[in-house]
Amino acid sequence: MSLSFEVDSRSGKARRGRLVAPHATIETPVFMPVGTVASVKGVPQDILEELGAQIILGNTYHLYLRPGVSTVRKLGGLHGFMSWPRAILTDSGGFQVFSLNELRKVNEEGVTFRSHLDGSSHFFSPESAMEAQIGLGADIIMAFDECTEYPADQARMRASMEMTARWAARSKKYFEEHKNEVPWGGDVASAEIGHGGTDALVRPAEPSSTAQASLRSPGRTRASVPPHMDQTQSLFGIVQGGMDRALRKESAERTIEIGFPGYAIGGLSVGEPRELTREIVESTLERLPNDKPRYLMGVGTPEEIVEYANLGVDMMDCVLPTRAARHGLLFTSEGKVSIKQARYAQDAGPLDPNCGCRVCQRYSRAYLRHLYASNEVLAQVLNTIHNLSFYLDTMRRVRHSI
Amino acid sequence: MSLSFEVDSRSGKARRGRLVAPHATIETPVFMPVGTVASVKGVPQDILEELGAQIILGNTYHLYLRPGVSTVRKLGGLHGFMSWPRAILTDSGGFQVFSLNELRKVNEEGVTFRSHLDGSSHFFSPESAMEAQIGLGADIIMAFDECTEYPADQARMRASMEMTARWAARSKKYFEEHKNEVPWGGDVASAEIGHGGTDALVRPAEPSSTAQASLRSPGRTRASVPPHMDQTQSLFGIVQGGMDRALRKESAERTIEIGFPGYAIGGLSVGEPRELTREIVESTLERLPNDKPRYLMGVGTPEEIVEYANLGVDMMDCVLPTRAARHGLLFTSEGKVSIKQARYAQDAGPLDPNCGCRVCQRYSRAYLRHLYASNEVLAQVLNTIHNLSFYLDTMRRVRHSI
Repeated sequence: MSLSFEVDSRSGKARRGRLVAPHATIETPVFMPVGTVASVKGVPQDILEELGAQIILGNTYHLYLRPGVSTVRKLGGLHGFMSWPRAILTDSGGFQVFSLNELRKVNEEGVTFRSHLDGSSHFFSPESAMEAQIGLGADIIMAFDECTEYPADQARMRASMEMTARWAARSKKYFEEHKNEVPWGGDVASAEIGHGGTDALVRPAEPSSTAQASLRSPGRTRASVPPHMDQTQSLFGIVQGGMDRALRKESAERTIEIGFPGYAIGGLSVGEPRELTREIVESTLERLPNDKPRYLMGVGTPEEIVEYANLGVDMMDCVLPTRAARHGLLFTSEGKVSIKQARYAQDAGPLDPNCGCRVCQRYSRAYLRHLYASNEVLAQVLNTIHNLSFYLDTMRRVRHSI
Repeated sequence: MSLSFEVDSRSGKARRGRLVAPHATIETPVFMPVGTVASVKGVPQDILEELGAQIILGNTYHLYLRPGVSTVRKLGGLHGFMSWPRAILTDSGGFQVFSLNELRKVNEEGVTFRSHLDGSSHFFSPESAMEAQIGLGADIIMAFDECTEYPADQARMRASMEMTARWAARSKKYFEEHKNEVPWGGDVASAEIGHGGTDALVRPAEPSSTAQASLRSPGRTRASVPPHMDQTQSLFGIVQGGMDRALRKESAERTIEIGFPGYAIGGLSVGEPRELTREIVESTLERLPNDKPRYLMGVGTPEEIVEYANLGVDMMDCVLPTRAARHGLLFTSEGKVSIKQARYAQDAGPLDPNCGCRVCQRYSRAYLRHLYASNEVLAQVLNTIHNLSFYLDTMRRVRHSI
């Protein structure tokens, strides 16, 4: 078994647990920073480690287009490619295919779409999305689903939900047949021995001089070698059903019937009112097994992630902390700070007096404001480090309160 | 005395020395990374410290325009503002006023120019350039000079050189009369007690709760408090004279006659052939005192900085490592690498197998190439860290060879 999940304590509906993945043990509830194209924008991996991130997200759609799955596979999967030794989760590409591409054709087979990079034509199906995610080698991968648009009428929500269920079965079938192809450890036997690959780390008897030197270097990332060499990836199912509680219930039942080690709630935060999001989350959680991790995709604000964790969600991801940071919108214990504002121009105080991150420990608001106003790259770097620290600290506090 | 310079050993014309500035002891020859608007683009200050940078450069022209000298002064000078506890050198603004502004009017008084940011009209003179640099509070500041254009005829080079000499005298006069206004230590008694200011650090009896918490925090930067509280800034003179050796000789003599603790050679790397640069550097160095630091401004490539250090230059600065990094041009022990090239797309090896920097120790060429091709911010961050590491390591090796 490649994924174990233990609930250690409860408080109301909230659960505190441990998700043991091949590359890391993740304390839940967890917030997963998004590293879209194998980089959490602007933040080097060692800082991510320092912030305590145990699992980050990669986007299959983007990586499939650039640099391409075969390149990542050759470099030892995402872990080797981006030198991230902890856990990674990839989405299936389904969401971006729907959200980033206006010209797309959906049928039972899959989705034909055009690359947003160069307009070239591509096709995603449950099978190809599994193939891509196996090649990328994340610890946890997602079934290929259809993210139902919002709003949608009953018939549309049903049809979409049912296709997602059929696609989930196809995803699982392909995954079970091909999961041994994941480029971890022995599977890259024929790959180049090199800095980022795994061979040099798995077979110390024949390391290149580079790898030897690297093994001696402090801080060298033991990338791509999971602690337990017999582990494989885990595939999560995704519950859809739009904003209809009955459809959500049915989707949950059908997904559970196929059987996955974890379940996600997709198709939310697509423009619906927040009260509706909460309603659907709450009722859907009741349909999901208690002993498996529950992953709410694509949410949320600092308040929302606390709220959903308290409802019993175990995993969440969102671009908000990273994207807001790039726009100078910073989350603090005293509320949101729009650092570009003139009021901060001579503010010598820290961004957040209650934050222990390296940004708040060292730099003043005035300096952060100056960097942002000057369009300096360091603005994006420091703002993102702080926002991620805030989110990760928020989750840490939630865990401690359970 | 605020600056002491000792030559510890020699090898040919090269000298290995120690420059004791208020905020750091700098081993020479030294390469100074350029932090234009109070940031070495993309590189956080703690990484600069880790790379071993003892002194960095700030550009007065840019900082004067944004965020403005009074803001920086209020935050404790550049050291407090950008949380850099080691040494800083500022240029006078003269070069950018000439190079960035086509519409400018020069007369004996100074230079009228328009801000490249918003077109507003400004005036720089020796006096105002000193006032600005005192407010910014760098350890070493530069006389306000005229960077002679290239090419220029004899009459023009002479006139320009002579005005620089007159401006040097005015710079020194103003500096001597006002250097006590530097915002270090006790001089910000009336400034806000805060995170970035110095009061909280100088007067621990009345720290804000923020400052107290900060003093307890690991890694807290003791910014803006120089080791020796009675120290002030040092003003360096600049030798001009275009490409004429006799004019350079005369400029050196006149600058020495005014008397400065250090001397710079300006007005080179302005388009002249490299052999001419070397000629002028070599002959000008012979005119400068051996017991004072000699600063060659605005150079150069990794080969050039070694070459000039071996001629007897003690200090250099250049935007090349940082600017080239942003264009994916990386300096390595095996030559220049243009990381965007397709040949690196699956190259698992490190950027430079002989480099000990965090980038080469962790990431593959394939990953760096992907980041650059994807226009990721991390590309700029990592590329810059490597190039600076390469330059600083190069200088370190030169020092060890002397």
